[in-house]
Amino acid sequence: MARDITITHVRITPIAFRDGPLLNAAGIHEPWALRAIVEIETSDGRVGISETYGDEPMLKVLEQARPLLIGLSPFALGTMEERVRATIKAVPGAVEFELAPGSHAAKNAPKVISTFEVGMLDLQGQIVGAPVVDLLGGAVRPSVPYSAYLFFKYAEHIGNPYAPDAWGEGISPAQIVAQAQRMIALYGFQSIKLKGGVFEPAHEVACMQALAQAFPGVPLRLDPNANWSLAASIAAAPALDEILEYYEDPTPGLEGMAELAKHTRLPLATNMVITTMEDFRKGCEMGAVKVLLSDHHYWGGLRATQTLARMCRLWGLGMSMHSNSHLGISLMAMTHVAASVPNLTYACDTHYPWQEEEVVKGGRIRFEQGSVVVPTTPGLGVELDREALATLHAQYLECGVRNRDDLQQMRRYDPSFSGKTPRF
Amino acid sequence: MARDITITHVRITPIAFRDGPLLNAAGIHEPWALRAIVEIETSDGRVGISETYGDEPMLKVLEQARPLLIGLSPFALGTMEERVRATIKAVPGAVEFELAPGSHAAKNAPKVISTFEVGMLDLQGQIVGAPVVDLLGGAVRPSVPYSAYLFFKYAEHIGNPYAPDAWGEGISPAQIVAQAQRMIALYGFQSIKLKGGVFEPAHEVACMQALAQAFPGVPLRLDPNANWSLAASIAAAPALDEILEYYEDPTPGLEGMAELAKHTRLPLATNMVITTMEDFRKGCEMGAVKVLLSDHHYWGGLRATQTLARMCRLWGLGMSMHSNSHLGISLMAMTHVAASVPNLTYACDTHYPWQEEEVVKGGRIRFEQGSVVVPTTPGLGVELDREALATLHAQYLECGVRNRDDLQQMRRYDPSFSGKTPRF
Repeated sequence: MARDITITHVRITPIAFRDGPLLNAAGIHEPWALRAIVEIETSDGRVGISETYGDEPMLKVLEQARPLLIGLSPFALGTMEERVRATIKAVPGAVEFELAPGSHAAKNAPKVISTFEVGMLDLQGQIVGAPVVDLLGGAVRPSVPYSAYLFFKYAEHIGNPYAPDAWGEGISPAQIVAQAQRMIALYGFQSIKLKGGVFEPAHEVACMQALAQAFPGVPLRLDPNANWSLAASIAAAPALDEILEYYEDPTPGLEGMAELAKHTRLPLATNMVITTMEDFRKGCEMGAVKVLLSDHHYWGGLRATQTLARMCRLWGLGMSMHSNSHLGISLMAMTHVAASVPNLTYACDTHYPWQEEEVVKGGRIRFEQGSVVVPTTPGLGVELDREALATLHAQYLECGVRNRDDLQQMRRYDPSFSGKTPRF
Repeated sequence: MARDITITHVRITPIAFRDGPLLNAAGIHEPWALRAIVEIETSDGRVGISETYGDEPMLKVLEQARPLLIGLSPFALGTMEERVRATIKAVPGAVEFELAPGSHAAKNAPKVISTFEVGMLDLQGQIVGAPVVDLLGGAVRPSVPYSAYLFFKYAEHIGNPYAPDAWGEGISPAQIVAQAQRMIALYGFQSIKLKGGVFEPAHEVACMQALAQAFPGVPLRLDPNANWSLAASIAAAPALDEILEYYEDPTPGLEGMAELAKHTRLPLATNMVITTMEDFRKGCEMGAVKVLLSDHHYWGGLRATQTLARMCRLWGLGMSMHSNSHLGISLMAMTHVAASVPNLTYACDTHYPWQEEEVVKGGRIRFEQGSVVVPTTPGLGVELDREALATLHAQYLECGVRNRDDLQQMRRYDPSFSGKTPRF
C-alpha cells in the first residue's frame, strides 16, 4: 500500500552548465552556473527529483539534512519540515551574495524544505498517478506564461572557456531589441523583462523606450536590482511610468521603495526587500510594494508559495515569480505551483532561454506562445537523463567554480569594478 | 485514469439530532441541533462526504453553490474556490447569531469552500488510496487530543420533547466536577474546558477552582463567550491566573482584550474577535490575543486552516480549535487537519460527547485517552450510514427548527431574559 513506501536513499549531485556573460548589478555571470540535483529513492524503487542551488554552502546544508529523510513516507511533508526546521540553522560566516539566494544562510531551512518537498511531491504524484499540481489543489490555468528575460551582455566570456553563445552582444537599445526579437521568435513570450542596474539609468530607460516602440502593447518590466539611488529611481520614474507594467527593485530597502512610491504611478515589485515570511510579516503593511516575486526555492517550497499567495491576496499584493539560472526540473516545479495559484497573474521570470543544456529526458522543455503547458502525467512530469547528469556533474568537477561570484568575475574584465551598490 | 473522474451530482441533506439543554451566553441550546450532510458523487460512482451548518441561510447558499461543482475534477480545489468566491457573496439581511457561525452571511464563501473541500478531499483520498491527512502533508501526530468540553446545563429541556439525557443538571461547582468526572471516565480527556458566560463570574470562577482541585495538573480553560465586561474580566483574572492554561474570550472586542491583557499573565484566546482571514490581517499585530481557535467550517477549509496555522506560527500565536454541535464527519475532518498542523498544540474543542446520534457507519467515533486516532484508510475514514441519515433527516422535517436561536429558546424558560451582552 502507498502508505508503506518509505524513503531509503537521498543522492545529491552538484552540476555545472554553461551560462552566458550576462551583466547585472553585482557584476557578470561566470561561464559556469551551479545547481544541485537531488534524487529521493523509495523502498519500492521510485526516484523523486528536485533541483536547487549548487553553491558550496547549500551543498553542505543539503548533506547535513540528507539523513532526516531516511525512513519517512513521501507523504510526510509536515514531519520533514519539522525535522529540517529543528536541524538546519543559519550558518554564521557563510558566503552571502545578495543576488545568489543559494548562498543566503538565513534561508537555509526554507531552501532545504523546498528541495525535499519538490522531490517528495514528485514521488507522491508517481505513487498516486497524478501530476504534482493536482496535489496542490489542481491547475487554475492549463499553461503558465513566462516573460522574455533580457540581459545586458557581452558577446563572449573573458578567456573564451568555450565557443560564444548565439545571442551576441546586448548593450545598445538596438541590440536589446534584437535580443527580445530573437527570444520571442524562439519562445513566443508575451511579456518582456530587462535586468538592469548595469549602465547609467538614462541608457536603461532608453532601452525600455526602444522595447516599448518595437513591441507596442507588450507588458514591460525593468529590474535595476536595487542598484539605483532613490534620486535616480525617482528621476527615471516619469519616463518609465509611460511604459512599464511594474517597476522592480530600483532602489534598496523598504524605506527607499516607500519614498519612491510617492513619485511613480507604477506598482513597485520586489524580490529583494521581502524575501522571507518574516520579511512579509514586517513589511506587509508598509504599502510601498505592490507586487511580490515568489520563488519556491527560497520561500520554503511549493506549498509555502501557496501560503504566500493567500497572504498576498489578503494583504492586497500582486504576485509574480523570480528566477535564477536553472534547468528543467526547476522549470517544471515552477510551472506546477504557478498553475495552482489563481492570483499569480503576472508572467513568471525564467532564465531558461539562457541555458542550452538539460538534465531531463527529452532535452529542453518546450514553450508554446511563451507558456509551459502544465503536465498531466504523474509527478513533476520530467525524469532525469542519467547520461546528461553524468556530463553536467563532470563539468562541475572540472570547472572549478564552487560559489557564484559575479563580482570577482567582473573584476577579471575591469579590475577597478567596486561592486558597491547603489552604483547609480 | 484518476484525472478523468468528474463530479456529477451533489446532494445536500439537512438533518436534526438531539442536543442537550446546554447554557451559554446567548441562552440555551434548543432540543434539536441542525447540520447539513453533503454528498459529492463522481462519474465513477464514488461518494465524498462533508458535514456543515444546517441553518436555513446556509442551506440556501449551499443550494446556490451546488451547480458550481458539476463537471469538476475532485482534485480541482483551486478552481472550486475561485468559482465559489465569484458566486457566493454575503446575503444582506440574513439571520446573524454570534454563537452560530452557520448564520454568518459574511462567512458564506469560506463556509461553502470548506464544505466542498472536505468532500472533494474525501474523494481524492478514496481515488488515490490515501487518508485525507496524507493529502495535507501527512500526520505529525498519530492521534489528536480533544478537551472535555463542559457546559452549565439544566437536567431536561422545557416541554420534555424526549427523555432527558444521562448528564443531569450541571450548575453547582460539585455538579460541574461530576460532569467532568463522567466525561473523562467515558472519553479519557486530558484537558478541560468550561463554557461560561452563564452565571455570575464569581460562580464560574468557583467552578474552575473546584475543577482545579478535583483534577490537579490537568490543563483548564474557561470561555465566558464575551459575556463579561472588561471590569468583570479583570476582577476574575487573579484567581484564574492561578489555574487556567488560557482565558478564552472573556470580554468583547480586540480593544477590551488588549486592555485585559495588561491585567493577567494568562494567554488570551479567541474564536470571537478574530474569525476571518481579514480579521487576522487587521488584528495580527494587536498583541492582545495569544491563542487563536481555528475552525475549518468557517475559516475556509482544511487547507485554509493550514494557512492560518502558518500565519499563527509567523505572528507568534498559539493554536487551538473551536467547535459547534457536530457529528462524526466533522469530527474526522477536524482530526485529519489537526493531525497535520505541528503548531496546533492545544487539545481541540469538541461538542461530540453531548451528542448521542450518528450519521456514519459503525456509529459513534471512539476516543482513546481523550484522543481520536488519525485514520489510515482512504479518504476521511468514515462512510455515511444511509439509514441513519434518513432517520436524522426525518427528525429535521419533524422538529420544526430551521435556524439556531438560543435566545428565543431561553425566553421559553425565562421571558425576561434580555440576551444583552456583556451580561456581567
